[in-house]
Amino acid sequence: MDLTPLSPTERSTIHRDAQRARTDRAELYAILDEALECHLAVIWDGAPLVLPTTFGRDGDTLYVHGSPHAESLRLGASTPVCVAVTLVDGVVYARALKDFSLNYRSAVIHGQPSEIQDTPTKLHALRTIVEHCAPGSWDYVPEPDPHDVGWTCVLALDLTEASVKVRNGGPMDSAADIAASDVWAGHLPMRTAFDSPIPSPDLRPGIELPDHIRDRRWPGA
Amino acid sequence: MDLTPLSPTERSTIHRDAQRARTDRAELYAILDEALECHLAVIWDGAPLVLPTTFGRDGDTLYVHGSPHAESLRLGASTPVCVAVTLVDGVVYARALKDFSLNYRSAVIHGQPSEIQDTPTKLHALRTIVEHCAPGSWDYVPEPDPHDVGWTCVLALDLTEASVKVRNGGPMDSAADIAASDVWAGHLPMRTAFDSPIPSPDLRPGIELPDHIRDRRWPGA
Repeated sequence: MDLTPLSPTERSTIHRDAQRARTDRAELYAILDEALECHLAVIWDGAPLVLPTTFGRDGDTLYVHGSPHAESLRLGASTPVCVAVTLVDGVVYARALKDFSLNYRSAVIHGQPSEIQDTPTKLHALRTIVEHCAPGSWDYVPEPDPHDVGWTCVLALDLTEASVKVRNGGPMDSAADIAASDVWAGHLPMRTAFDSPIPSPDLRPGIELPDHIRDRRWPGA
Repeated sequence: MDLTPLSPTERSTIHRDAQRARTDRAELYAILDEALECHLAVIWDGAPLVLPTTFGRDGDTLYVHGSPHAESLRLGASTPVCVAVTLVDGVVYARALKDFSLNYRSAVIHGQPSEIQDTPTKLHALRTIVEHCAPGSWDYVPEPDPHDVGWTCVLALDLTEASVKVRNGGPMDSAADIAASDVWAGHLPMRTAFDSPIPSPDLRPGIELPDHIRDRRWPGA
């Protein structure tokens, strides 16, 4: 695992609320490993386009996949992208309106993805994405159809140029606001959890819920 | 409330999984009103930049705010943006790897924001953002400092050019996969909820938790 500190290029340097910037690559990995979706931005016809999509991470590579006809992937294979992964952790109630905030963990990655052409690497990338979104599933279900694998577009993005920003805890009111104020201040944490699995209506009788789905918990939940 | 159907420009027309596209403006509003964060994309120095930020909605206008020095706002005031708002609702476990998916509600908006200059409109926009993220707070805490209001950059984005995509329910396996497969298929719903409020360590004794924070529930929770 590459634990090089996060890179300080101009576009990956945090200027706003710089005290929230993190430089530890392990924090980048933790955010990417918890979130199920990323937001992938490309330039399309002179304007930005940002779409949500699933992804997976292996070491310092982020993988996204989809139809080769999807604009975001077609453009991402040949032009720079930006990917944001965000976890919202709560709402901060301050004494002054300007100090209200969300608590969050945010990763932003810049780079030029490469399209994966060879089948073994593509299978590895698809496995990484499936195991990120539905751990335990790759070995549980039948191997993917080679035609589907061949058709699917997979992009690999290096995590070298990335920034991480984290805000947690309660409000940061000024001493004057704390002294003058009679309003409640604190924060309201948010939690994500999985509910009970819902079987497909067409599930044949006798097929048991496997452990990897029954026991799945949201990280930290 | 403008209930014009969602607009079918080329870039706001959904081609992938077109059966997931929604055309009802009320679905756009529901997604924007539930999510706390959006992802705002701009073009910066020839490359896309996407950042998470809070927002608010009033009618067919989306507001974002922040430092006038933030690249995303500075650029958003003069060049096109794209804003994505995404709620992930669960994980779909299918019989075939190609049919695995997330359940989600996703809104994508394209347009050229305008920077709000006049103070009454800016106050309305800031109130909209605060009441979106922390309902009940605008009237509970002191009025904002006019200097802070003047300094803050607020952008307004029209919701005319928008698309909505929704995936829900269980897997959509082929009849052949259903017949041939012995694997469990279904979906694992996700839920977001607020935990108990945590008072700031410097909260003066005797200040009670107000109802609008104590009673806050995630929509649908």
